[in-house]
Amino acid sequence: MYAKILGLGAVTLLLSARYLHWLFRRWRSRVPLKEVLFFPTSVTCVEHLLLRHLLSATSSLDLCVFAFSNQELSRTVLLLRSRGVAVRILTDKNYMIMSGSQIGALRRAGTCVRHDLEAVHMHHKFAVVDGRLLITGSLNWTVTAIQSNRENILVTEEPDLVRPFIREFEQLWEANDPSRYRSSLS
Amino acid sequence: MYAKILGLGAVTLLLSARYLHWLFRRWRSRVPLKEVLFFPTSVTCVEHLLLRHLLSATSSLDLCVFAFSNQELSRTVLLLRSRGVAVRILTDKNYMIMSGSQIGALRRAGTCVRHDLEAVHMHHKFAVVDGRLLITGSLNWTVTAIQSNRENILVTEEPDLVRPFIREFEQLWEANDPSRYRSSLS
Repeated sequence: MYAKILGLGAVTLLLSARYLHWLFRRWRSRVPLKEVLFFPTSVTCVEHLLLRHLLSATSSLDLCVFAFSNQELSRTVLLLRSRGVAVRILTDKNYMIMSGSQIGALRRAGTCVRHDLEAVHMHHKFAVVDGRLLITGSLNWTVTAIQSNRENILVTEEPDLVRPFIREFEQLWEANDPSRYRSSLS
Repeated sequence: MYAKILGLGAVTLLLSARYLHWLFRRWRSRVPLKEVLFFPTSVTCVEHLLLRHLLSATSSLDLCVFAFSNQELSRTVLLLRSRGVAVRILTDKNYMIMSGSQIGALRRAGTCVRHDLEAVHMHHKFAVVDGRLLITGSLNWTVTAIQSNRENILVTEEPDLVRPFIREFEQLWEANDPSRYRSSLS
């Protein structure tokens, strides 16, 4: 009888251990991506890591960036559009007309672009890929920023960090709707 | 006999459930801080949330910031120093001499300051409090950035995000040691 009791106890413990192991593996597989990239770096092609994250987009790219003059990143945005990814760009109204800005070319290619309507700077530098992945930091989308300056970007899928940036983008996108601007002038 | 077996099985399951509950509570209490602040905001005094995080420093504040002209933040740094907190500031050599910069005043008050030695910009905007808490984003430590611009900061204790910024600070602090600079001139 005691052998049976011990056997059953052992089986129960074994099952509990296997359940704990399964729970742990499930938790590990759900740990969201967290990555930090610094520019410039001795690691070759850190910008390619940035491009890889952008090119992972399958449905949407929401970009909120103060300055955008990097041609490679501009080509990446156009490539995503050609793949059917919905791209929205929010930018600063003063910097979008600076020499070398890619905003005009992106607009002419049909990309949805809005700019802030305020006297102050729209100084954000973040992107949200597929409503899932946040890319944010000090880095403007310029050649100097990527190739020369000391800069950082943080890439994360942590929902507690991604969600506030999605809300901020939606709120700024609505607030800077040109139809509102026109009606406020009338 | 069956009653005994069932009883033992029930006790084992109960103990497993209690262990799982204990594990869950332990995991919850260890979830690191993750917070996002946007500037400007309708929420009163979002800058006070930033000050609260800075004033939580008990041993060190490592600050790596492109532009620093905000007097309230400068007073906060001096208050931390008066409390015995070790403060180190890394900044951009061009912006540190701009009108309104607080770097000179902080240096004269005895704060350790180093600036980059390169032609490009030291464009980071991050702080590490007590080697534990990271504050990073688009926000320079200026009045305009805090009171007017569209800006963000991300505050986190997530070790996977804090550690790379600590390494970046230490590496830049060493690389911009004035003694190295002088010896490279000789």
